Amino acid sequence: MIRISIDAMGGDFGPEIVIPGLATALERHPDIRFVIFGREEEVRPVLNRHPTLASSIFHHCDVSVRMDEKPSQALRNGRWKSSMWRSIEAVKTGEADVCVSAGNTGALMAMSKFCLRTMANVERPAIAGIWPTLRGESIVLDIGATIGADAQQLVDYAVMGAAMARSLFEIERPTIGLLNVGVEEIKGQDDVKDAARILREIPLPSLEYYGFVEGDDIGKGTVDVVVTEGFTGNIALKTAEGTAKQFAQYLRDAMGRTLMAKIGYLFAKGAFNHLREKMDPRKINGGVFLGLNGVVIKSHGGTDALGFASAVDVGYDMARNKLLSKIAADLSHFHKSPVGVAFQGDAENDSEAEIEPQA
Amino acid sequence: MIRISIDAMGGDFGPEIVIPGLATALERHPDIRFVIFGREEEVRPVLNRHPTLASSIFHHCDVSVRMDEKPSQALRNGRWKSSMWRSIEAVKTGEADVCVSAGNTGALMAMSKFCLRTMANVERPAIAGIWPTLRGESIVLDIGATIGADAQQLVDYAVMGAAMARSLFEIERPTIGLLNVGVEEIKGQDDVKDAARILREIPLPSLEYYGFVEGDDIGKGTVDVVVTEGFTGNIALKTAEGTAKQFAQYLRDAMGRTLMAKIGYLFAKGAFNHLREKMDPRKINGGVFLGLNGVVIKSHGGTDALGFASAVDVGYDMARNKLLSKIAADLSHFHKSPVGVAFQGDAENDSEAEIEPQA
Repeated sequence: MIRISIDAMGGDFGPEIVIPGLATALERHPDIRFVIFGREEEVRPVLNRHPTLASSIFHHCDVSVRMDEKPSQALRNGRWKSSMWRSIEAVKTGEADVCVSAGNTGALMAMSKFCLRTMANVERPAIAGIWPTLRGESIVLDIGATIGADAQQLVDYAVMGAAMARSLFEIERPTIGLLNVGVEEIKGQDDVKDAARILREIPLPSLEYYGFVEGDDIGKGTVDVVVTEGFTGNIALKTAEGTAKQFAQYLRDAMGRTLMAKIGYLFAKGAFNHLREKMDPRKINGGVFLGLNGVVIKSHGGTDALGFASAVDVGYDMARNKLLSKIAADLSHFHKSPVGVAFQGDAENDSEAEIEPQA
Repeated sequence: MIRISIDAMGGDFGPEIVIPGLATALERHPDIRFVIFGREEEVRPVLNRHPTLASSIFHHCDVSVRMDEKPSQALRNGRWKSSMWRSIEAVKTGEADVCVSAGNTGALMAMSKFCLRTMANVERPAIAGIWPTLRGESIVLDIGATIGADAQQLVDYAVMGAAMARSLFEIERPTIGLLNVGVEEIKGQDDVKDAARILREIPLPSLEYYGFVEGDDIGKGTVDVVVTEGFTGNIALKTAEGTAKQFAQYLRDAMGRTLMAKIGYLFAKGAFNHLREKMDPRKINGGVFLGLNGVVIKSHGGTDALGFASAVDVGYDMARNKLLSKIAADLSHFHKSPVGVAFQGDAENDSEAEIEPQA
């Protein structure tokens, strides 16, 4: 049985989409048991409409974190008692194997760091996203936990991303690429170059270092895991989303232009539906917080029940494939290697200070 | 008359695509006069096949810069004498208004910096790209001249990008957005925040500061000019290219899946052709080097004649609309403002050192 704790109050629509999402996920994976946190008067009526969820555990929480709350505010107002905090805490206490929330990313990350703390040997967590590619799916991280990353952090991301790829895609030795620019004259990015050197020098059984990749390699699926720092990763993700929307709009416009096009559209409707399904952002939903002593999945805030169910699916796979122990084992393997040991002098956990709320 | 100097040896195919591209551009803009540089034995035969280009000036050059040559190598081997150098130099001497090359970006930027030098008040040049959007076209810079940019450089990019937008789109006061991540908890990027403060505080007649934009705002066309540093800009550009290719492939696959889809495709062929044309990367080709004492246009190396003609079109527009004097005037206006003056203490031109070839 996989136990998943749920922040029912997260997202733009709260329990109205979260609870139906759980029902959908349960159909796919009957061995899930949910531990749901939220305001009784809002959650209970929706829960009652879904009898399959009757075996879920429900905990009332007075406080909900708002979508526009700043991380420090959220911590001040919601620590110990909000549905977001308590769903994360359920992972810490062992009541749940993984936590899923559609709440605001900043607050969720701050609370997750504060509650679960970063793993031994990890300087700071990353958010990993699943990216549809021409070859299937790849993992891209960091898509927005932190701006900037030094060589050691990039290597940590590589190790963690590889563990996630092994959990999600069930491949033995995922390929890892470091995102870089291919333009010769560009100097700098010493961190990326240093990370490349380390990944080349330490042969790890858990991953295969491919080399540098460029932005267009992500969509091609050149590697299983693309590693970059959070600013670039977030911009790349949003840019791809924007381009996909742009293309979809062009296609709609083209198909409505002439009578012939409209007739063609009718004939090819099945194909268009297939394409729409393929491009459906709800099917791949769920950023995975990596590097903490527990797995937290962030669903898009604006998604619907189907999208939330996808985020639950991701959490299910992560828990079932024991992502956390894979990461711990791989990191420990890395840090025992000669190059890894040389690193440990620098490895300070500086992440707490940033998110400590002001009293 | 607009005089355009051409490095006929640049790109993957050299004169074979460059010269036909010039003929196409000349059809569109009969007031262009080309000044062509290249190896006589390779250029002349192709030139002879295009009688409309008979009025072009041709200069033989022994040396061509290879596509895989490092910037420092290219400078060592090709300074003073290569077709690339001499086409740039024609802009410096005033023989041409603008230079177009499909040669390798690193070498072209190094030579352009060395030959033309950066403008007064500009710390370092940027490469600006034209990005198709749902609203039309936007300018994105820097797409790969330099990694990293401080607040002052970002503001310079904003001023230069705005001047380019005025030249290209012929709008009075283009809107400017600074590319950023929208995630609350992310700290850092002080340079972007500082640049935002400066742009808010200095009301410039030449641009309207919009605020921060995210990756998906580029494709939406939220602003006329998107400003970011070269690493992120290059990754965003390549990622968008990758996503567009991915979508096109999905569409092709979908249309070939069933007999109904194939019939639908036949009816909608006109619409698909329209779409293909809209997405055609050859139609928007040409990175503009901004911030030098002369305008240099970089065409994609792998493009064909039509693509090279598009790059020439961009150069034509830049020259006709007096981009260079617009930039100079706008920058001088900015640097005379109180906040701009406060900057000048820091403004050192550090770009030469990087590209000085080793003797």
